[in-house]
Amino acid sequence: MKNYVSIGLLGLGTVGSGVVQLIKNHQEDLIHQVGCEVRVKSILVRDVEKDRDIQIGQTYLTTDANEVLQDPEIDIVVEVIGGVEEAREHIIQALEAKKHVVTANKDLIALHGPELQKKAIENNCDLFFEASVAGGVPILRGLSEGLSSDRIQKLMGIVNGTTNYILTKMDEDGLSYETALKEAQDLGFAEADPTADVEGLDAARKMAILARLAFHTNVELEDVEVSGISNVSVEDLNYGQKLGLKMKLIGHAHIDNQQLEVSVQPTFLAKSHPLAAVKNEYNAVYVNGEAVGETMFYGPGAGSLPTATAVMADVVAVVKNMRLGVNGKSVVAPRFERVLKTPDQRFGKHYFRLHLQDEVGAFSKITSLFNELDISFEQILQTPLSKDELAEIIIVTHRVSMESSQKALMELRDLPVVKEVISHYSVEGDVKK
Amino acid sequence: MKNYVSIGLLGLGTVGSGVVQLIKNHQEDLIHQVGCEVRVKSILVRDVEKDRDIQIGQTYLTTDANEVLQDPEIDIVVEVIGGVEEAREHIIQALEAKKHVVTANKDLIALHGPELQKKAIENNCDLFFEASVAGGVPILRGLSEGLSSDRIQKLMGIVNGTTNYILTKMDEDGLSYETALKEAQDLGFAEADPTADVEGLDAARKMAILARLAFHTNVELEDVEVSGISNVSVEDLNYGQKLGLKMKLIGHAHIDNQQLEVSVQPTFLAKSHPLAAVKNEYNAVYVNGEAVGETMFYGPGAGSLPTATAVMADVVAVVKNMRLGVNGKSVVAPRFERVLKTPDQRFGKHYFRLHLQDEVGAFSKITSLFNELDISFEQILQTPLSKDELAEIIIVTHRVSMESSQKALMELRDLPVVKEVISHYSVEGDVKK
Repeated sequence: MKNYVSIGLLGLGTVGSGVVQLIKNHQEDLIHQVGCEVRVKSILVRDVEKDRDIQIGQTYLTTDANEVLQDPEIDIVVEVIGGVEEAREHIIQALEAKKHVVTANKDLIALHGPELQKKAIENNCDLFFEASVAGGVPILRGLSEGLSSDRIQKLMGIVNGTTNYILTKMDEDGLSYETALKEAQDLGFAEADPTADVEGLDAARKMAILARLAFHTNVELEDVEVSGISNVSVEDLNYGQKLGLKMKLIGHAHIDNQQLEVSVQPTFLAKSHPLAAVKNEYNAVYVNGEAVGETMFYGPGAGSLPTATAVMADVVAVVKNMRLGVNGKSVVAPRFERVLKTPDQRFGKHYFRLHLQDEVGAFSKITSLFNELDISFEQILQTPLSKDELAEIIIVTHRVSMESSQKALMELRDLPVVKEVISHYSVEGDVKK
Repeated sequence: MKNYVSIGLLGLGTVGSGVVQLIKNHQEDLIHQVGCEVRVKSILVRDVEKDRDIQIGQTYLTTDANEVLQDPEIDIVVEVIGGVEEAREHIIQALEAKKHVVTANKDLIALHGPELQKKAIENNCDLFFEASVAGGVPILRGLSEGLSSDRIQKLMGIVNGTTNYILTKMDEDGLSYETALKEAQDLGFAEADPTADVEGLDAARKMAILARLAFHTNVELEDVEVSGISNVSVEDLNYGQKLGLKMKLIGHAHIDNQQLEVSVQPTFLAKSHPLAAVKNEYNAVYVNGEAVGETMFYGPGAGSLPTATAVMADVVAVVKNMRLGVNGKSVVAPRFERVLKTPDQRFGKHYFRLHLQDEVGAFSKITSLFNELDISFEQILQTPLSKDELAEIIIVTHRVSMESSQKALMELRDLPVVKEVISHYSVEGDVKK
């Protein structure tokens, strides 16, 4: 056996450069951990001549994927090229050539994770993807090893840094959504086209990956119900402050009696909830286990070096397995059929903001509507509006089924005294008076 | 190979009962994870006849340690008996009989961890102790696997639930130290003799274990500088609120240029610090890595089932290693000589509260004292006291060496205009105005 491990990189962007930098700077620590040197042998790039921040000899670079994927000297392929189809083909080719694979690609794993894991097992290869969820936060190992003996019941995640940054700025500095988004773009926290982030699609991919691992079942991306933050207004955040609530884009994954729900939606959290204190671009995953109770994993969700740390933790795990001769054995195969909850099985608290005609008996029409649906109130806030003889009403309900809350929403919209239902959000946690 | 793994338990108290319960309730999940049944074979107790909350047949119980330690059928010994000497002898005997050991015993590991790890390696046995720090929080695996490729620079922990509960109650409900302690005792969060908790000794043991793992060096328990919370007053907590600071009992472990400091002390945290939001009996460990930046692991620090979850995660790891034939290989041996920082190499911000004669020029004597020591102020708060023509002054300094802050403290005490230095605490984090 040669006394070093060779790595082939697919991609040399933000994360790829971080990986090269970590291997260079932490070589001595790596040797101590895995007992041998870890070397980068070749790197697939689109343009060898391109100016790069990172210093690396051109001889390492290639535009031909086969020079990485077919090189018998390369033990581990690190995929940080992004995108879905090309990355998928590269990874399948790598696994078929008996190379272990580490990837940071959440889109790919969310869509094709189960297929790729099967391929990895068939070839006695490791396929690890710690960096695909919450960047530097070691949440996947936390779930599959740290909490291995427990039964996870509920998982809530702030797994998108862009939207958390925007909501923090709206909440703390009173910025509008548009201004906060612009600021995030200027700082490089949001892309020119922010759709995948602000509409919750990026978070949905991570939640699918997390839910699979937590519940041992094959959650598909389309099982995740998604709504984004582009309609969230500063007014709602201000009301939240009065009610002891903080708005976050939360990925939810719950399981009861082997029936599950997975969603991503703007959610009001009680200020006492551990996730309510997670600010700016930080990520965190809150895990509720039957035995352990409440735990939370917090850290940077993106960035070159944090994400590279997660990639390298996977590389270290692969090399340890190589030296022990046990690759391809730590994959957790799904063991349950996934059964999704129906709306009458999904329970939660809800926040409604509505404009009401400011006339005698108007409010009692609202209360009788909620009474009839058997929905009780946790908090109510009424403010007169200067214009149009309207009152603004905020209602926070106790826990009700999603079916009831949807019915309430429809009936409120039909009620003549209700001028408009301005907004409707989920609420999590207990507000102490 | 027999198709199940046998466990011998030393102790059937809070944690032991949790372990028995988890093995019973999660048997199916365990089988799926490790590929075979996990059975409790025998349990060492002091009194077989004692009434217990947990249902377990008397045939499992024994008062003879050798029935666990010498039974060739037992593969893994789980030590949850507590105490130091007896537990140490049992564990050595178990390792010499080639049994893997899982322990929740922080006192033992803090004092004899390195010796026991050596013994484990000699016998090709695993020795795991996840449950010894922060109960259900998988922090040891987080450090040694999740952040394996990074270089940890700083670690701050709320690793004692009792003191965190007391400080939370003092801060939020304005209770005195004595009343809050009484409440904690009534709720079972504090022991009848609370010394080990409130004086920081329990936290010091955990910090020694964490610092060893994070910095790859043999930190000894006596390297940890300790002060407790029994002198913390509600007045200081109230001033903290005005200054944007929260008091926590913080275990600190820093390393710069291979020189380290480890301490446990009541510390004012900026409210924006992730640890500042950790309330009641919860624990959390904040880890700052060179590449990953800020991460935090949060969860229950004690309790039967949370701690049992950590014990069982270790058992799962041992069984996986057994099936792969790789036990005794995942121990991280220390690789650096430990060098402790001297006081002039330790830097931090400081909070001073003092009573000053309310006379012309008094305050300028304070400022010139600090000027001469080259200490600048971050925040100052002056309040007249109704009695004795005194003023109460709070000073928060910028970062200075511990040597300078100690000198300032001594000189303040000697200054005739200073009636009394009431309190002095460390401060961490940036307070934003």
